[in-house]
Amino acid sequence: MKKRGKGKDIILVSNDDGIRSEGIKALRAALESLGEVYVVAPDRERSAASHSLTLHRPLRVEKIGPREYTVDGTPTDCITLAVNGILPRRPSIVVAGINKGGNLGEDISYSGTVSAAMEGTLLGIPAIAVSLVSRKNFDFKSAARFARKLAKRILAKGLPKDTLLNVNIPQAKKIKGARITRQGKRVFGDVVFEKVDPRGKKYYWIGGNMLRWEGGEDTDFAAISRGYISITPVHLDHTNYSAISELQYWKF
Amino acid sequence: MKKRGKGKDIILVSNDDGIRSEGIKALRAALESLGEVYVVAPDRERSAASHSLTLHRPLRVEKIGPREYTVDGTPTDCITLAVNGILPRRPSIVVAGINKGGNLGEDISYSGTVSAAMEGTLLGIPAIAVSLVSRKNFDFKSAARFARKLAKRILAKGLPKDTLLNVNIPQAKKIKGARITRQGKRVFGDVVFEKVDPRGKKYYWIGGNMLRWEGGEDTDFAAISRGYISITPVHLDHTNYSAISELQYWKF
Repeated sequence: MKKRGKGKDIILVSNDDGIRSEGIKALRAALESLGEVYVVAPDRERSAASHSLTLHRPLRVEKIGPREYTVDGTPTDCITLAVNGILPRRPSIVVAGINKGGNLGEDISYSGTVSAAMEGTLLGIPAIAVSLVSRKNFDFKSAARFARKLAKRILAKGLPKDTLLNVNIPQAKKIKGARITRQGKRVFGDVVFEKVDPRGKKYYWIGGNMLRWEGGEDTDFAAISRGYISITPVHLDHTNYSAISELQYWKF
Repeated sequence: MKKRGKGKDIILVSNDDGIRSEGIKALRAALESLGEVYVVAPDRERSAASHSLTLHRPLRVEKIGPREYTVDGTPTDCITLAVNGILPRRPSIVVAGINKGGNLGEDISYSGTVSAAMEGTLLGIPAIAVSLVSRKNFDFKSAARFARKLAKRILAKGLPKDTLLNVNIPQAKKIKGARITRQGKRVFGDVVFEKVDPRGKKYYWIGGNMLRWEGGEDTDFAAISRGYISITPVHLDHTNYSAISELQYWKF
């Protein structure tokens, strides 16, 4: 499943928390021994940027260090520009993260970290998204060590076609192992807060507190809640094949 | 599969081209006979906004007419705010569009129109995304007529769980019928253009010309190219189940 360029493997690292985040630094340091690491990341935080591509304006790329670039765009822009412009040859893997906070369940649709990996997969490059599920005491180093282990394996063996891995890692002390999981689903409580500004005008703020998750024992949520690393294979093809036969009976 | 509130069905209409687009006006007009249509749409174009939620700033909602609101946010914001704040009761269906231009293949991941429908589905409301595959002479009226037909059927019969319909409609004169399809895949040519600004500094512009599509006769691309309306059931769960068993053998 693997294509090799000339010379060492290029490892493309990006994220959505921006170039200055601790998570991307830890990832870069951990991956250095596997190949030539290039960091191409947004110049500032782009969380919840999702899979957006910047089409309506030009993009600037700045080289800020050896094999280190910023883009004034989204994570998806970073991967597209890196592969089609910045890198000296095609990367062997895209590693996105380490995100500060988990990307579980429907986060997969919203997350800039997952989107960066998805863009790699769309371009035919094996890709993983790595997130640290924690709210404080972020131990990026041990998460980065696991990312390295996984990246090494993928560099050797590749990944299933059109599929990225969405990896969520719990806090270090709790890790019991790794589980292959499926995407779970949240049940939300109140998600929109209505407030009044100093001039008496209403505004809204999207919040959202999770009441619980559902989907059973084989989900990403279940793995994390039990102290396991969750690895979800995410497919680029979003077709609901089982619904196709059902819909075939509809007449128009 | 259907839940009814009190009174007439509420039909929530949104898009990513913005409130002033012709497509949303045609859609609203066509759906009026099916229930109480509410339009909640971005105040300006938000194409390629993808599934992003605005979390870092407050959002303003403006009532600009009877059952017509603008939001200074993304299509996803519009649906969340509509369902959790603006509408008097839960909508029976979300109809997003009509997008000016197709949303085929991997567009499903990028499209704001599809994202608006996806947010409806996430909230447990049947949803469709409607796009007109054309580059000129946009005949929104006949596309809106088909959207009405489909919405009527969904109001009566519901949709498969966690599944939205991504509907692409070719130009009116060409329509031969409708096909249930799966998501196809593009093969791209050059996607990034490197240019130099008036001050001699480099910049990049993401373009992307499609060379061809692949995936066979049952794809959205194939249906459209033959003059059929394409209806792709899109699942919220992006797990690649067939990859799970393969990955189970990996040791960590």
